[in-house]
Amino acid sequence: MQSPIGVGLIGCGTIGYGVVRLLVQEAELYARRLGRRLELRRILDRRTDVGDTEKLVAPGLLTGDADAFFNTPDMQVVIELAGGKGIVSQFVRRALSMGKHVVTANKSLLAAEGPELFALARQHGVSIGFEASCGGGIPCITALNFGLMANQMQAIYGILNGTCNYILTEMTRKNKDYATALKEAQAAGFAEADPTLDVSGGDTAQKLAIYGSLAFGIQARGDQVPTEGIDKLSLADIKFGAELGYDIKLLGIAERTSAGVSLQVQPCFVKVEEPLAQVAGPFNAISVFGHSVGQVMLYGRGAGQRPTASAVVSDLMNIASGWYPKAFADLRIWCDQHEPVKLGNPVGQESRYYVRINALDKPGTLAGVTKALGDAGISLSGVVQHEMAEGKFVPVVITTHKAAQGALRAALAEIARLKVVEGEPVAIRIVDMPKG
Amino acid sequence: MQSPIGVGLIGCGTIGYGVVRLLVQEAELYARRLGRRLELRRILDRRTDVGDTEKLVAPGLLTGDADAFFNTPDMQVVIELAGGKGIVSQFVRRALSMGKHVVTANKSLLAAEGPELFALARQHGVSIGFEASCGGGIPCITALNFGLMANQMQAIYGILNGTCNYILTEMTRKNKDYATALKEAQAAGFAEADPTLDVSGGDTAQKLAIYGSLAFGIQARGDQVPTEGIDKLSLADIKFGAELGYDIKLLGIAERTSAGVSLQVQPCFVKVEEPLAQVAGPFNAISVFGHSVGQVMLYGRGAGQRPTASAVVSDLMNIASGWYPKAFADLRIWCDQHEPVKLGNPVGQESRYYVRINALDKPGTLAGVTKALGDAGISLSGVVQHEMAEGKFVPVVITTHKAAQGALRAALAEIARLKVVEGEPVAIRIVDMPKG
Repeated sequence: MQSPIGVGLIGCGTIGYGVVRLLVQEAELYARRLGRRLELRRILDRRTDVGDTEKLVAPGLLTGDADAFFNTPDMQVVIELAGGKGIVSQFVRRALSMGKHVVTANKSLLAAEGPELFALARQHGVSIGFEASCGGGIPCITALNFGLMANQMQAIYGILNGTCNYILTEMTRKNKDYATALKEAQAAGFAEADPTLDVSGGDTAQKLAIYGSLAFGIQARGDQVPTEGIDKLSLADIKFGAELGYDIKLLGIAERTSAGVSLQVQPCFVKVEEPLAQVAGPFNAISVFGHSVGQVMLYGRGAGQRPTASAVVSDLMNIASGWYPKAFADLRIWCDQHEPVKLGNPVGQESRYYVRINALDKPGTLAGVTKALGDAGISLSGVVQHEMAEGKFVPVVITTHKAAQGALRAALAEIARLKVVEGEPVAIRIVDMPKG
Repeated sequence: MQSPIGVGLIGCGTIGYGVVRLLVQEAELYARRLGRRLELRRILDRRTDVGDTEKLVAPGLLTGDADAFFNTPDMQVVIELAGGKGIVSQFVRRALSMGKHVVTANKSLLAAEGPELFALARQHGVSIGFEASCGGGIPCITALNFGLMANQMQAIYGILNGTCNYILTEMTRKNKDYATALKEAQAAGFAEADPTLDVSGGDTAQKLAIYGSLAFGIQARGDQVPTEGIDKLSLADIKFGAELGYDIKLLGIAERTSAGVSLQVQPCFVKVEEPLAQVAGPFNAISVFGHSVGQVMLYGRGAGQRPTASAVVSDLMNIASGWYPKAFADLRIWCDQHEPVKLGNPVGQESRYYVRINALDKPGTLAGVTKALGDAGISLSGVVQHEMAEGKFVPVVITTHKAAQGALRAALAEIARLKVVEGEPVAIRIVDMPKG
């Protein structure tokens, strides 16, 4: 047996309790796999009551005093599960500067300050494990960094937020409107009381920035990602899309385009036969397209105590075994080693689109709409006008052939000005995945 | 830049060409990621004509002489893509004994001699990369070994053979019988001229032995796995199953049971909503259930030149970077470090079953059948008798509640002896996956 590895934990909420429980209950298994023991030396949490955790650990392990925490001897790895930036960023920097490895599930911190933190770790000869920061327990980062290393990545399409996917699955399969589905998701514990970060797409954007940086060898921040959430989606569009053979998904998309790497978060229509379309409820999945491997999809629970604790403790073990710090030091695949890039402007990006317009059902209406699209160089692949009620406003659904995002927006603005059109046209990207 | 890594290649067929092409075309990318160059020093192949490979490499790189190959200086890694055992096993042993790392896609070799080869590698301070041996380009082994390290594995359900899955998908979705689907798969290049190893389940059993060893920390050989193929499946059963809400899949199943770890390959019914049921055509997928992470599914192309080359070159890079040899040396997760175990006897294993009987449509027939099941302690969850044609033999489909495999077989033997029953009853396991 090698000497034990000392572990400190910052933040002992739901995930933290899951981590402590694994470390206590599986101590023998982990020691057998590693040839050394993992020993929890200190827990930093401002709260004096951290629930059941105290029943699992030796008295005195918990402290609210950061200095006491950082002065704990023989603590080689710090697990950060407090979340957020500010003081937590300071804690992470302090740990790294003291030559302690860090394991973190903190996507907002990494999506904002990743390159600086990675450089700091490198400067002090330690590593950062971050599998738990995106995709909960799904080993996406391990797969991208190591298992698929021989690939040039072409694209990533990810269902990265379980709250959104749960709500969209309920809307699609049970005909609920957004407000009802959200309320039920909150009651079922799949959505927070304040769901803004999830439903706005912000959480997805942070994860996409992390995946996109790894997959494309760039530096990208979450706040650089053009983001649209699910909170304005109407059930009508989901139903029209279903009739055309599409499921709605909130996708984080990273693509290599002629204008550079483009990152974008938006609700998209995906063909029902696609594996991604079949990802239901709170599950997450990420479809990666590599130039050699083709399509690889990883699927699982993207959040929750036990899945996230699995990723945190796996990172901890990979650090304790010594191989991960070596990979962190020797490979040139980490975000601090890439150049900050200007992301490709999605305006020029081409895709098919679903468009819905509320138009007056009278002769000439469709001609005006199609002329606006034609003038922008956009050709139609289909038109569906559902109800016929002459003299009234009815939904007209159009699917386009490939069109640039900017051209489509311009055409829709033109269409919105037509007298026969009521309200704003709705446009939803139809994602055709590469043949993989 | 560190000094280059010298690479030798044994076997330059389809996959070998894919590997050589990646090494030539992506040399700059790989050097950037690794901080060192990968240099192909020698290719061993008995054929004098290896197609397009020679156009990619320097003259004289190809040799048919094993001594010349092994005496090539500065060759730290040997990639073995010749397949099979016998002389190829000798080549692998020779490379390891000379202190060369080995990357192999050879599942039959590993499923038979894995523990010996791993021990030999360890003895000489080198490592074996084997991501390409199972699941083509899908990074299953990297995920199991590293990304999910904190888990006790509960079960693995894998669609591990693209040929079988292609044939079953065609039978299910296009109503083809087995012989027609096989012939078309051969014409489309998804099945070999001699498809025995695939359709018999033998290929799946070899891969399952490798995954099972890793996931459960045991030693298991492919020839220890009770195996049933798809070659006796009838279209009628696939259709009856579909009516009940099930898709047929050839599954490799590794489960922790009360009698120990059980490995088994057989055609199974899976609920159509399960992600595994939706894996279509030549794709593979493996669903892993860990005690902390829950369900994780990895999906992609399990064979083919480019996906397999992705796994081979990723392994090579992970070895060249030095981290993989460290993980191989320091972790206690490799098959040579586990005890050989007696696999759990599947006779006691409980599952639900689909049973079809050809029975004479006359009063009392069903009573005789249900009595035989009842006497074996097996209760029915449903009975479907499709056609009514008094005095003729008609298919009777029964689904059971959980029953031990041995008890079911005994009951079916009893049923086969009934005068009102024609031919052998058909039994197909219905797999209920853990809540994950």
